[in-house]
Amino acid sequence: MIETRYNNLLIGIAGASGAGKSYYAAKFLAGLNSAATALCIDSYYKKQTHLPMAERVKQNYDHPAALDFALLHSHLQNLQNGIAIARPVYDYSIHDRTAQTEIVNPAPFIFIEGVLLFAYPPLLDLFDYKIYIDTPPDICFIRRLQRDTKERGRTVESVIEQYMNSVRPMLNNHVFPYKNKADVIVNGENFDQAAFTTILEQISTLR
Amino acid sequence: MIETRYNNLLIGIAGASGAGKSYYAAKFLAGLNSAATALCIDSYYKKQTHLPMAERVKQNYDHPAALDFALLHSHLQNLQNGIAIARPVYDYSIHDRTAQTEIVNPAPFIFIEGVLLFAYPPLLDLFDYKIYIDTPPDICFIRRLQRDTKERGRTVESVIEQYMNSVRPMLNNHVFPYKNKADVIVNGENFDQAAFTTILEQISTLR
Repeated sequence: MIETRYNNLLIGIAGASGAGKSYYAAKFLAGLNSAATALCIDSYYKKQTHLPMAERVKQNYDHPAALDFALLHSHLQNLQNGIAIARPVYDYSIHDRTAQTEIVNPAPFIFIEGVLLFAYPPLLDLFDYKIYIDTPPDICFIRRLQRDTKERGRTVESVIEQYMNSVRPMLNNHVFPYKNKADVIVNGENFDQAAFTTILEQISTLR
Repeated sequence: MIETRYNNLLIGIAGASGAGKSYYAAKFLAGLNSAATALCIDSYYKKQTHLPMAERVKQNYDHPAALDFALLHSHLQNLQNGIAIARPVYDYSIHDRTAQTEIVNPAPFIFIEGVLLFAYPPLLDLFDYKIYIDTPPDICFIRRLQRDTKERGRTVESVIEQYMNSVRPMLNNHVFPYKNKADVIVNGENFDQAAFTTILEQISTLR
């Protein structure tokens, strides 16, 4: 794959939980057909095999320290340079990385999305294009509440408690301050077809 | 009560549902002891006796048209002028005003709070002091969700549906645009003791 080597385009998508990051990432993937691949930062939660379970559940998973940014950085650099990676597979039920990995092949357009994506400065230099999905916090919370109660069997009170004690303070400290690092800010309240088309044209010209 | 006639102070408190309006109103009442009284705009929902129940449930209670602003205006003017009023008593279960009323006596400080309080221009001229409680929309929604599910037996989905279809658009159209009409904007995320003390001093000097 000489033709994609050294110039695969790395596009970062950040924004709050519930902002619509993975929705936009899926739209970009579909718009670029087989020329794109997408990763989620959640795969890069730190290995915690050395910690007893009681310690693992106490970690703050909404803080940048929970993520293995060094590994993510080297993987993204490899993909940019046309080298396949062995992406870690994380198991939420044991709060640890599993022994398995998944091969991710490089592609001309590499998308990576994550709440804390812009909070690690060395990564910012790596991105060719940075998108921030900006969605009002009440909408983000409602989406999160619906997802966590329906798909993850959580109670309303536990979602509210985690949001108030961890998610929300971490958003204020490690997500919102980096909004201005983005090349483009997209409204995530509804899908913005015009913004989507413009971005797709822009990133296509970057290659 | 000659001494309070013509110069009772009328203080309006507006802000979204869940912003903390009634919390602040109660604090002001306590801070002023027996020199104050407080009303809520919800007592002034329009009489709907002429409408069948099927029509009543279809009304948009988050829109200014649902409120009897003319009656509220005359009642507030009376209280300002030292004249007792017969405040309507609203029954949510039948979406109508009841046959009862409650006598509200004038007081040196009259507080009135309501989401849509600043959306009716003639009222704005009546207020001696206007307070807007400004609280992030995710916090307001969570407070509303907790209140409506715990105190009113509503389901999470019905609270979300009403919020998205009615409450939220009405906030954007009839509440947030009037924030700048306020004399003071108070952060409602937590109780702001410094702002509270300052306002209490300010309104005390106005009399």
